[in-house]
Amino acid sequence: MQLAKGTRDIAPEQKLQLNKVVNTLVAVFERFGYVPLETPIIERSETLSSKYAGGEEILKEMFTLKDQGKRELGLRYDLTVPFCRYISMNPELKMPFKRYAMGKVFRDGPIKLGRYREFWQCDADMVGSKSMRADADIILLALYAFKELGFAIEIKINNRKLLNGIMKQAGIKDVEGAILSLDKLEKFGKDAVVKELNGKGIGGDAVKKLFLFMVSDLAKLKILITDDEGKEGLAELEELFSYLGDKACVFDVSLARGLAYYTGTVYEVYLKKSPIKSSVAAGGRYDNMIGQLLGSKLPFPALGISFGLDVLADALPSATQKTTTQLFVIPIGTVKESMKLASFFREKGINTDLDVVGRGISKNLNYVNAKGIPFVVFVGEDELKKGDFKLRDMNSGEEVFLKKEEVVEKLTSSKQ
Amino acid sequence: MQLAKGTRDIAPEQKLQLNKVVNTLVAVFERFGYVPLETPIIERSETLSSKYAGGEEILKEMFTLKDQGKRELGLRYDLTVPFCRYISMNPELKMPFKRYAMGKVFRDGPIKLGRYREFWQCDADMVGSKSMRADADIILLALYAFKELGFAIEIKINNRKLLNGIMKQAGIKDVEGAILSLDKLEKFGKDAVVKELNGKGIGGDAVKKLFLFMVSDLAKLKILITDDEGKEGLAELEELFSYLGDKACVFDVSLARGLAYYTGTVYEVYLKKSPIKSSVAAGGRYDNMIGQLLGSKLPFPALGISFGLDVLADALPSATQKTTTQLFVIPIGTVKESMKLASFFREKGINTDLDVVGRGISKNLNYVNAKGIPFVVFVGEDELKKGDFKLRDMNSGEEVFLKKEEVVEKLTSSKQ
Repeated sequence: MQLAKGTRDIAPEQKLQLNKVVNTLVAVFERFGYVPLETPIIERSETLSSKYAGGEEILKEMFTLKDQGKRELGLRYDLTVPFCRYISMNPELKMPFKRYAMGKVFRDGPIKLGRYREFWQCDADMVGSKSMRADADIILLALYAFKELGFAIEIKINNRKLLNGIMKQAGIKDVEGAILSLDKLEKFGKDAVVKELNGKGIGGDAVKKLFLFMVSDLAKLKILITDDEGKEGLAELEELFSYLGDKACVFDVSLARGLAYYTGTVYEVYLKKSPIKSSVAAGGRYDNMIGQLLGSKLPFPALGISFGLDVLADALPSATQKTTTQLFVIPIGTVKESMKLASFFREKGINTDLDVVGRGISKNLNYVNAKGIPFVVFVGEDELKKGDFKLRDMNSGEEVFLKKEEVVEKLTSSKQ
Repeated sequence: MQLAKGTRDIAPEQKLQLNKVVNTLVAVFERFGYVPLETPIIERSETLSSKYAGGEEILKEMFTLKDQGKRELGLRYDLTVPFCRYISMNPELKMPFKRYAMGKVFRDGPIKLGRYREFWQCDADMVGSKSMRADADIILLALYAFKELGFAIEIKINNRKLLNGIMKQAGIKDVEGAILSLDKLEKFGKDAVVKELNGKGIGGDAVKKLFLFMVSDLAKLKILITDDEGKEGLAELEELFSYLGDKACVFDVSLARGLAYYTGTVYEVYLKKSPIKSSVAAGGRYDNMIGQLLGSKLPFPALGISFGLDVLADALPSATQKTTTQLFVIPIGTVKESMKLASFFREKGINTDLDVVGRGISKNLNYVNAKGIPFVVFVGEDELKKGDFKLRDMNSGEEVFLKKEEVVEKLTSSKQ
């Protein structure tokens, strides 16, 4: 039996690692006033393929299926479109609505190292505020989250309105096309981007002008920018940075984000001093998408951030914890009493396993070693009579005789 | 935009409830020495439709799909078959291997109240022990879990070997068919079961004999049972009950479990004094399935339990907690300082939200009420100068002036 192409199992030690990231992020989201929301994995095709949703590229990668009623369905490729559907179906929601979501998403695309067809996404989104205070709050959340996770980071920040203004001033008509090409500047370099722009029919003069604006300095751009939308974007960036005041946040005029739906602030988080060069979290403002999806003329200003759960779990110091089990009980002719003792330890909050096969001592010790369980208690007739149990520290080999309550005490304190 | 048929959103207050159940179960599984394992949602069709897997009925309800390479795929309908695939792909695993798993499973079946096409499953399984100690340990886990969740329960226990013996003694040839019919005794009554048995060609005499054995009393059955397999099942039950000694565990000779793959102990957990009449957790021993799936002659004795996550979340005292946010900061002309204060509270571990829209006080208070946030702090120029902040308890209406550290103290203690 084999795995389906592009999927993977997450083995216990990796999953324990992933759970740490998940628990940290859940705590951070709730620390910032977000509530959890769960939407289904299966959505109607018409929802997922809506014109204003993920865009053509993503739709090519959508897994499609049908139910017995021949209804056209798809597996979600992100958590944002289902979020918008939820907003549309719950008009009574008080705004701003701040929700976090974690779940598997699916993309039937090319497979590379570390890129799967089924992967975790973990998003925080807020709908209902057009103020830069909201953008600041979500960037502060990212700073807080990575501090809690123990990573040094840099957050690159830009604004789509500014980019739109720059494109207009450079005389570029295919603004969206140019922005999507520009997004590749950091990764592929200027030559590649120029070539791609030329390929889109954006000529030498416009490209030259465009690169005059590639100065990540708000003061300098303030002199250069005359376009109204560009000025608005610049003003938004100034307001945003006035709230942040953290050296980890830097302005990057070439940052664009690959998705067409962004309308204002965009941001990407990178790890410092890490072999992982791609962004580990990213997001931005998408003020038009929900209204367009809903066919509503009401404004639904929105913004969000998405964390790369798998890549973060991989970036953590390598998994050394094989199990959360703390203690293994080895019965020596004392099955029932050992089971009772295991129950005692469990009631006291000690993660306890015991021999349920009926093996000898050395086989049990081999097992405990293989599983990485740190302590063993031996339960023979003598031990039961005296109420003194031999506890072995599997790392040091040290053995001590303790009352069962003392075992609890020792393991509770060794846990911290 | 609408949901796909048979799917549902889990709104924030329900999801907070579900998370409580999940967190409790994760803690209990780890308390009993289980490690987490995650397998993908998409599996190969050939894995899911293996002859020894879920069985014909479930295969009719399998969602199928293809990837771009035209590979035949399916959405998992349970967590057991993927677990067996994992075992087959990881022959180096030390036995017994005890894993827990939580995830969405999918069945394209008829929809009823509380029955969805996409739902949570939450399983603990152990492979590698044929001893009744293992069965006892997993039933003790169920007792522990429901105590932690705060439910009074009854666990019905039976043994398939005993049932097989009874069927043979009753002269029934279609043992499996008869067992699956008998499983409906509790739910539909004797007349319905007799009718179904007759429909399967099981005649009056055999049926009469069968019902002579429907006595949930191990001592009485010991006199009646002469078949070797039946005797073995009876002996297993006696050993198992000798380990349990909990009044919540009762022998029920008519319990069979709907699935064909069970080979020994079977169990179902029911809530006491609850409107929920269906089982909330269930499982049993399936000693042959993994070996058969693997085409291996090695024995892979296994057993497991599955918890009904959605039904348990519904059974909890109704959701009253709308949010985990404890405090809302209302700036009165003090945007930056309020953001800093919110950051201070968050750093101190208080789940804090703040006005990121720029609304007036009364609109903010309406919002706080609607969201169910228990405390508000007002931040005006005066408050900042004095370092004294007005904290309002939204439930009592009480207002006090406190230093920011005192706010932290008050909210930290009110949390417990």
